[in-house]
Amino acid sequence: MTQYVFEMAMTCGGCANAARKVLGKLGEDKVKIDDINVETKKITVTTDLPADDILEALKKTGKEIKRLQ
Amino acid sequence: MTQYVFEMAMTCGGCANAARKVLGKLGEDKVKIDDINVETKKITVTTDLPADDILEALKKTGKEIKRLQ
Repeated sequence: MTQYVFEMAMTCGGCANAARKVLGKLGEDKVKIDDINVETKKITVTTDLPADDILEALKKTGKEIKRLQ
Repeated sequence: MTQYVFEMAMTCGGCANAARKVLGKLGEDKVKIDDINVETKKITVTTDLPADDILEALKKTGKEIKRLQ
């Protein structure tokens, strides 16, 4: 399992929920959401999936997203 | 060209931008965005595409969405 951190242009709780939902679609057993922080705009997950799979899922929300670590 | 109205759980300008972006991906020549209103949560578009195509695109944002007309 690897932990990744992404920065996504979230500006409200609805934006955070959108991230939660698209990550959930990857499978709740596949992606553990460690933190979603609207203030810092950071999303932290732990997963066995490649980081690009997470990035692609988050991109579907239509928000700007990049991987930090 | 047909006009459709959808109700989407938008709670901020970021949510509206997310809708704008996924609709833009369908092709700016394919979907004319008539209005996106965060207050009323309504998205109005004019298009030759089937309403379901618009609905599927908007669903990708991870927000609750339904067609009103």
